[in-house]
Amino acid sequence: MNDLGWTFIGIIAALLTTFSFVPQVNKMWRKRSARDVSQVTMLQLILGNSFWLLYGIGRRDAVIIGANIISIAILIFGVILYYRFRENEG
Amino acid sequence: MNDLGWTFIGIIAALLTTFSFVPQVNKMWRKRSARDVSQVTMLQLILGNSFWLLYGIGRRDAVIIGANIISIAILIFGVILYYRFRENEG
Repeated sequence: MNDLGWTFIGIIAALLTTFSFVPQVNKMWRKRSARDVSQVTMLQLILGNSFWLLYGIGRRDAVIIGANIISIAILIFGVILYYRFRENEG
Repeated sequence: MNDLGWTFIGIIAALLTTFSFVPQVNKMWRKRSARDVSQVTMLQLILGNSFWLLYGIGRRDAVIIGANIISIAILIFGVILYYRFRENEG
């Protein structure tokens, strides 16, 4: 595969992982409940993605920067929903 | 920051995100329950990490390959626990 092909594979990979918490956020929102969802996983991802963001800034890599800003925004929304709905029996 | 410094930031980032589903897997296992956990998020991450793995193979990048194999293994365990425990009231 040529360079363009691998870049395309990388873009698909980045899109799938960047937006991976949209279904989890949607499920908590729809059910008004967050039982058994791990806030530690979300907080660890926010911290990890923040380090990736820092890494992207250091490497001046616009794709890493953009993808991680989006991920962090989705995850922060997820944590807010978690604390809002975790007490509900849903 | 020098190159070694940015690499160190990248390693911290990779460790935090690679093992991000350990707390979620642990919570499902401990509670014997998987209510409100999104299987779509886990399946989307398995697919996304598989594309990252392919990308790492194409780029001959051992870190991307290794990190994504570990992530996929943790997520597969998560999906198995989800289907095992989702019916429980736990």
